[in-house]
Amino acid sequence: MNSIGQLLRLTTFGESHGTAIGGVLDGFPAGIVIDEDFVRAEMCRRRPGQSAITTQRNEQDEVQFLSGIFEGRSTGTPIAFMIANCNSRSNDYGNLREAYRPSHADYVYDCKYGIRDHRGGGRSSARETAVRVCAGALAKLALRQLGISVLAYTSQVGEISLDDNYTAYDLSLVENNAVRCPDAVKAAEMEKLILDVKRQGDTVGGVVTCVAKGVPAGLGEPLYDKLSASLAGAMLSINAVKGFEYGNGFAAAAGRGSEQNDIFFNNGGKIATRSNNSGGIQGGISNGNDIYFRVAFKPVATVLKEQPTVTKEGEEILLLARGRHDPCVVPRAVPVVEAMTALVLLDHYMLDKAKRF
Amino acid sequence: MNSIGQLLRLTTFGESHGTAIGGVLDGFPAGIVIDEDFVRAEMCRRRPGQSAITTQRNEQDEVQFLSGIFEGRSTGTPIAFMIANCNSRSNDYGNLREAYRPSHADYVYDCKYGIRDHRGGGRSSARETAVRVCAGALAKLALRQLGISVLAYTSQVGEISLDDNYTAYDLSLVENNAVRCPDAVKAAEMEKLILDVKRQGDTVGGVVTCVAKGVPAGLGEPLYDKLSASLAGAMLSINAVKGFEYGNGFAAAAGRGSEQNDIFFNNGGKIATRSNNSGGIQGGISNGNDIYFRVAFKPVATVLKEQPTVTKEGEEILLLARGRHDPCVVPRAVPVVEAMTALVLLDHYMLDKAKRF
Amino acid sequence: MNSIGQLLRLTTFGESHGTAIGGVLDGFPAGIVIDEDFVRAEMCRRRPGQSAITTQRNEQDEVQFLSGIFEGRSTGTPIAFMIANCNSRSNDYGNLREAYRPSHADYVYDCKYGIRDHRGGGRSSARETAVRVCAGALAKLALRQLGISVLAYTSQVGEISLDDNYTAYDLSLVENNAVRCPDAVKAAEMEKLILDVKRQGDTVGGVVTCVAKGVPAGLGEPLYDKLSASLAGAMLSINAVKGFEYGNGFAAAAGRGSEQNDIFFNNGGKIATRSNNSGGIQGGISNGNDIYFRVAFKPVATVLKEQPTVTKEGEEILLLARGRHDPCVVPRAVPVVEAMTALVLLDHYMLDKAKRF
Amino acid sequence: MNSIGQLLRLTTFGESHGTAIGGVLDGFPAGIVIDEDFVRAEMCRRRPGQSAITTQRNEQDEVQFLSGIFEGRSTGTPIAFMIANCNSRSNDYGNLREAYRPSHADYVYDCKYGIRDHRGGGRSSARETAVRVCAGALAKLALRQLGISVLAYTSQVGEISLDDNYTAYDLSLVENNAVRCPDAVKAAEMEKLILDVKRQGDTVGGVVTCVAKGVPAGLGEPLYDKLSASLAGAMLSINAVKGFEYGNGFAAAAGRGSEQNDIFFNNGGKIATRSNNSGGIQGGISNGNDIYFRVAFKPVATVLKEQPTVTKEGEEILLLARGRHDPCVVPRAVPVVEAMTALVLLDHYMLDKAKRF
Repeated sequence: MNSIGQLLRLTTFGESHGTAIGGVLDGFPAGIVIDEDFVRAEMCRRRPGQSAITTQRNEQDEVQFLSGIFEGRSTGTPIAFMIANCNSRSNDYGNLREAYRPSHADYVYDCKYGIRDHRGGGRSSARETAVRVCAGALAKLALRQLGISVLAYTSQVGEISLDDNYTAYDLSLVENNAVRCPDAVKAAEMEKLILDVKRQGDTVGGVVTCVAKGVPAGLGEPLYDKLSASLAGAMLSINAVKGFEYGNGFAAAAGRGSEQNDIFFNNGGKIATRSNNSGGIQGGISNGNDIYFRVAFKPVATVLKEQPTVTKEGEEILLLARGRHDPCVVPRAVPVVEAMTALVLLDHYMLDKAKRF
Repeated sequence: MNSIGQLLRLTTFGESHGTAIGGVLDGFPAGIVIDEDFVRAEMCRRRPGQSAITTQRNEQDEVQFLSGIFEGRSTGTPIAFMIANCNSRSNDYGNLREAYRPSHADYVYDCKYGIRDHRGGGRSSARETAVRVCAGALAKLALRQLGISVLAYTSQVGEISLDDNYTAYDLSLVENNAVRCPDAVKAAEMEKLILDVKRQGDTVGGVVTCVAKGVPAGLGEPLYDKLSASLAGAMLSINAVKGFEYGNGFAAAAGRGSEQNDIFFNNGGKIATRSNNSGGIQGGISNGNDIYFRVAFKPVATVLKEQPTVTKEGEEILLLARGRHDPCVVPRAVPVVEAMTALVLLDHYMLDKAKRF
Repeated sequence: MNSIGQLLRLTTFGESHGTAIGGVLDGFPAGIVIDEDFVRAEMCRRRPGQSAITTQRNEQDEVQFLSGIFEGRSTGTPIAFMIANCNSRSNDYGNLREAYRPSHADYVYDCKYGIRDHRGGGRSSARETAVRVCAGALAKLALRQLGISVLAYTSQVGEISLDDNYTAYDLSLVENNAVRCPDAVKAAEMEKLILDVKRQGDTVGGVVTCVAKGVPAGLGEPLYDKLSASLAGAMLSINAVKGFEYGNGFAAAAGRGSEQNDIFFNNGGKIATRSNNSGGIQGGISNGNDIYFRVAFKPVATVLKEQPTVTKEGEEILLLARGRHDPCVVPRAVPVVEAMTALVLLDHYMLDKAKRF
Repeated sequence: MNSIGQLLRLTTFGESHGTAIGGVLDGFPAGIVIDEDFVRAEMCRRRPGQSAITTQRNEQDEVQFLSGIFEGRSTGTPIAFMIANCNSRSNDYGNLREAYRPSHADYVYDCKYGIRDHRGGGRSSARETAVRVCAGALAKLALRQLGISVLAYTSQVGEISLDDNYTAYDLSLVENNAVRCPDAVKAAEMEKLILDVKRQGDTVGGVVTCVAKGVPAGLGEPLYDKLSASLAGAMLSINAVKGFEYGNGFAAAAGRGSEQNDIFFNNGGKIATRSNNSGGIQGGISNGNDIYFRVAFKPVATVLKEQPTVTKEGEEILLLARGRHDPCVVPRAVPVVEAMTALVLLDHYMLDKAKRF
């Protein structure tokens, strides 16, 4: 379905080149001050056309709230919002009515539904992530009241990656460069790589690392709605995501228990751990440490080179993509990863709260 | 919650050392012949004590079906089953009433619930995965009728890993060795490593690779119940799992779009792709290719060495685990990964079927 | 939550005097021709201002589809739609900011949320039912392909009620009068009663009877999603509804089993029943007979007479409602009951279909 | 599905003459003292064979808890329990393998599933309600801590009904007679009627009225999970239920708004209403008044008289029911109605709590 969350449920709608995209955020707590400037600022972080390394489409992505807010505060009723599709150049996509773009969802949508809005990828366009960022901004406003913050950054672009764990970086520097990488030197390398790749009409993948601070111990519903499972599901629901790992992740597979266990100690009266290989989640439940995880993105499938493919009828053709596309989706994916994280955390906060008598 | 699935929903219950563990599989289609021998064989693949490299606990794991089966066939009503806890040596765990084992769920359960059954890890014990294997065996029986098969194997133990993709191996050999690795040479190395680690009272992690064949194109519900998202959530719900990737996964981050795209061609009248970097899933929907993914397991947290920790009251103590534990969970996790995959695929098959008018 | 349905899920949003009301219909099957004229005609049946016996508010209730439809057919993606709030006279409601209208939801919304949009009842306004009618119209289009029809009518207004079961009436006559009653004589009496009551500044309740024909045997998910339970829940979700009964309903309580049992017989090779006291549902599952049920509506709470009440601060005041209100909601509730029925039936059709291998 | 509830979710399983029936209650709050004597006492209220007016089957209905309770308190993990089927005389049902009992679920189960356990009605047997009573007893224990109580009684048997609203009776007298009616004179009449009907081999219907006291204002989730809608759905999920009404229910249809509105006043500093026609629920949300509603039960379909029917193959036969059956289900349904009410209220309490920041 096009919804995510149990108590805080986001339902999204809209095709890339239809009338509008939008969402309904249901279950959002009442009485939260809705800082529309903050929402707008978050939207700008995802917006196309923000720098030389992103697509030159100039979508305004102006959010219009339709319900659920009264005199500046949430009312506890569904918050609906829409983003009109203004700058759509559908004729860029005329040749996609019949042709299946490689590694896009065109073919499978036809298999599943027998019909599809081919313009700009229709429902499968990453444009839908704008809706997530808006909803995530609202969730962040509620989490802020609870002392919970969520911050993500680009930790890899192509073969260039940060060597250290998030604790080695000053995350306040993330927004200082277009790549959203806290290491200025690496950021410059990444930016150069993206521009090179763009010049070649190609695309490149990368990794986003996300950190949530201030999450209280106890969030996560065993056994099948573990916090780690919810985060994994939410991340894999983002376009182009191919992998998820939390804590020491895949590296854990190579290790020994005696080295990786997070040893508890008494930290001045408070129970704490000497390391955080668990990534803040043990047995699927937050333990009060920072939560951190990594999300792998594949290179954007739309390359500006001629590629062979087939049409709906099976005819083999050569396809040359037109339109304006991102050479690397990762910098703009940073706020999307944060948004999904915020939605998951607020949902789990409420799930946990419900049962505390 | 303790349930997974939308139309095919497994609800599990039980603590490691309580009366019984078990599950209710609701939504299972009617009329499927229940091959109890097959279920038993699957249970044996996960059972402790099956070889020198697994724990020496000798749990029988005898499944008793309570409902939903009549004269050998499923009736469409909930299939409940239980597995009595026979061989529980609770006194092995007396010292765990107060102490928090490092990197276990003891501490977070106390944070969340204020009470826990400390014996053998209680609800957070991996013993619960026996229930998953039983339910997964039933799902496999239904999938078999649809021509869908699921097979997993050990692709990494500690620093020893298979170099190639699943297509390079003969997967019919997986059950030929205790490690469940299709490469006999690597299997022997892995087995040796596990025994070494065991001798040192330590544990080691690993990776399970899973392949599903015969999945028709069209499974997966955009946007938030993508097949990839459901698989990720299901895998991260398994104890000790730290990461998930499908297709070329994290390696995709380093690549270029022009190299990674799966080019469509006309394969004798049928649309096919020249590569399968997508892992059989595009835009969250199966495309008819093999589905494959990898699941990272951390080393078992229980090491047979003295470790510092704290008690409930914050007292710092040294803890020496007793009991019989796996030095490496991966070989026994193989059928668990398969089971969760089977449950997800059957659920998605039904979700897709529902809407085909 | 503000959603209903499992596979076909309607999520609604909007306050009476906010920017817009609307909905997202997710899970709707692909490829259905969307007859917008039919949708518009259904909306007109619920629209205010359609006759002398309804409120004189003149809302256009123009539906704007935002997504999920391409070249006149559903695409399987969420169908979002909105209805702008044009003719809202919010100053009619200025005195309701502090005062609690008797038997309205004002007080409980304040208890629950601590904040409310008081204008026109905000979220609790019956205006939300316009969204249901739109979604229900879409569901009817899909049901029509399956040979399933849904028809409701007014069977009671105040003390005037139809004496017979639905089978005694020609239901094609329902739309011939403003009351939506198939018995022209009773309809005239009902209309006169409504006008009398209106003149007195009062309101009156009534009953809607609904009949679904062509429903195949087998719909309904035991035990907690019985078709009867889903219908009851859906009907009780409509504003002002106080009761639900199906088949012979409350009258069954006074009867004997030997008289009420529906006796099976062989009707020319087809199994049929000699009576239909079960209302087409046995054990929660449709049996192929007509499904029929009755829904009780209380009199509209807004009377145009001075009523004592209290303010938020507990001050006792006299309140005189302004604005334009329905003296009897039942005629306009007829299409709402149909809409909810259509949504429930289509959802159950898909739930049943999912499991038929 | 065989589950009910969102945060507090009961999943039930089992056939009348299978190995066992049982349930899993998931989401139950941790730390609640489980008074097993109370659970047993509640089970006895529903148990067959408790008086001359109920079936003479002597099922022990001994509940065995399998999980979720540790040292006498709930742990927050799923509470599973089972009730073995001991006293099943399956040969009473041999002739039902082929024949469809009138107004039972035999026929529709065959339509839906193509297979059924015919013994004793299988899954559709009212025996399943024992599971509900057990889960409801647990919910009552949690509600008790919150000051919420639930009490039901028989308000009608056949043509004999109580004339007044629940407030006219001393509900502490309900358990003083076998019928569970607080009016001793009417109770005697009802009992006589049931015995007469039994002697004739017939059955009779009735009505259960239920009252919940101490429910705080604010429970109920607009718009589709209204408290009234959830209660209606839960009641209609009980075997043999044909109708539901709350507050003045169907009688409201005949009334005027000016008479039925519940006028607010300031009751010594607290907002209260002068009447309670709303039944404690306005706009789908509890308002702090007593919640009351009525549930109609049809006569038990199994009469001890010969009835015509058809077999699976369409052959017309005469069927004479054997076995031991209730002439009137209402007295034993009283605790079932209470149980479902308790489950709904606790679920809604948690849903509401989740969002109160």
